Amino acid sequence: MNQETLNPHELRARIRAGELDLPTAGFAADYVQANLMILPAEAAFDFLLFCQRNPKPCPLVEVLEAGCFEPATAPGADLRTDLSRYRIWHNGELSGEVADIKALWRDDLVSFLLGCSFSFEAALIKAHIPVRHIECACNVPMFRTNRLCNVAGRFSGPLVVSMRPIPAALVPAAIELCSHFPHAHGAPVHVGDPEALGIADLARPDYGDAVPVLRGELPVFWACGVTPQAIAVASRPAFCITHSPGRMFVTDVLNDDYLAGRSSTARPPA
Amino acid sequence: MNQETLNPHELRARIRAGELDLPTAGFAADYVQANLMILPAEAAFDFLLFCQRNPKPCPLVEVLEAGCFEPATAPGADLRTDLSRYRIWHNGELSGEVADIKALWRDDLVSFLLGCSFSFEAALIKAHIPVRHIECACNVPMFRTNRLCNVAGRFSGPLVVSMRPIPAALVPAAIELCSHFPHAHGAPVHVGDPEALGIADLARPDYGDAVPVLRGELPVFWACGVTPQAIAVASRPAFCITHSPGRMFVTDVLNDDYLAGRSSTARPPA
Repeated sequence: MNQETLNPHELRARIRAGELDLPTAGFAADYVQANLMILPAEAAFDFLLFCQRNPKPCPLVEVLEAGCFEPATAPGADLRTDLSRYRIWHNGELSGEVADIKALWRDDLVSFLLGCSFSFEAALIKAHIPVRHIECACNVPMFRTNRLCNVAGRFSGPLVVSMRPIPAALVPAAIELCSHFPHAHGAPVHVGDPEALGIADLARPDYGDAVPVLRGELPVFWACGVTPQAIAVASRPAFCITHSPGRMFVTDVLNDDYLAGRSSTARPPA
Repeated sequence: MNQETLNPHELRARIRAGELDLPTAGFAADYVQANLMILPAEAAFDFLLFCQRNPKPCPLVEVLEAGCFEPATAPGADLRTDLSRYRIWHNGELSGEVADIKALWRDDLVSFLLGCSFSFEAALIKAHIPVRHIECACNVPMFRTNRLCNVAGRFSGPLVVSMRPIPAALVPAAIELCSHFPHAHGAPVHVGDPEALGIADLARPDYGDAVPVLRGELPVFWACGVTPQAIAVASRPAFCITHSPGRMFVTDVLNDDYLAGRSSTARPPA
């Protein structure tokens, strides 16, 4: 199995069958992967507004109508089964992690798919910019920060960032390249000095795995699609479901299709 | 009065006082102008989803919480008074045009500000690309097309486009330049052949004023922020309020601020 060239359909089938219980970084690398947030319809306007006001952590790839679980970005897929692990939240507290959510599904649930940094990681690697957690075959390190997201209705809370160590001379190229991926968090939000973001220790991420920062490298921080999980903790919606950090939904949409002028949605412009 | 350099605060004050009852093309040219759609909260999720699925005609500049009429993009402004004309719609039928909507305001109304082509017109002029309706001091011509928008909940209907005649040799430059304004409809959706869009006669626009297409020019078509008005006609929401075509809300946000990496929202990233 070549994980990079596995197609999304095959990848989702293996995940659904429980054969691939791993973070999805580096898998099906040409395709858009997505963070997942599922909320009852009564909270959906507020969360959609939250995404509109916080496009760096929450770039909308697709929002489904209430009750729908087959995304337009992956016909035939099922959002209830096609991620390897889901987190269940009640009143902002994590109440469990499960392999599918069929038993929890309700007709009033609205699913949000948010772009993911794995989209630009493939481009970084093609540009000979190292991506440490892929080299280390572990999950990307993620940190809650002291930066607050823009409030929307009932939703507020801290920005979560992912961190990649980048050699100093390659930082400009990495930033320029990522700026072409607004559907996948776009350019970083911060370079160097973790303390300025309220991060005390890079070796102790809040989500994912620690990776070494080598001599001559700067830690570079991108807005992260795990932000909605920190928002759930801070804002305590009665019920929501998310993916487990690093274990994304893999769509059928090529990253290149976004780069070719379809930057803000997976659906073709009217 | 130099209309181009009038600042947004002064411009809104004149409009509010009824001293400036004109289309806003060419006024306060450095600032983001916005189309307006106001809907009751019960329809707001569907319309926000419509915008997310149709970012070319409906690029979101700002969405306000229910009942709010002071935009973050223009502190001190009042969306109920600061446009020169509003259109009132009941069940998809235009029931009147008024100079302010204070008497109609309700606590459940949600206001949507959508980007406007006037943002890129200033850039076209700076690039020595002619903008005919500004030369003619009239409103931009707008047409309903045979292209359907992506459906979202209760909302569906045709794409509306604005048309600008561009000298053939300047068409590539015009398109490239506008591609940098995704918050303002971005690159055009069509070049030449109006009939392919279902437009029978360029001399008879559905909204705004006709302008001449000269020898050596091609008609170039951009997705237009009047689209929600055609959507209202097609989808017949019980009640909505829009701006009158060409008479925009003028924000305090510089177009340059969007070009500097804030392309999908007027609010700074978290």
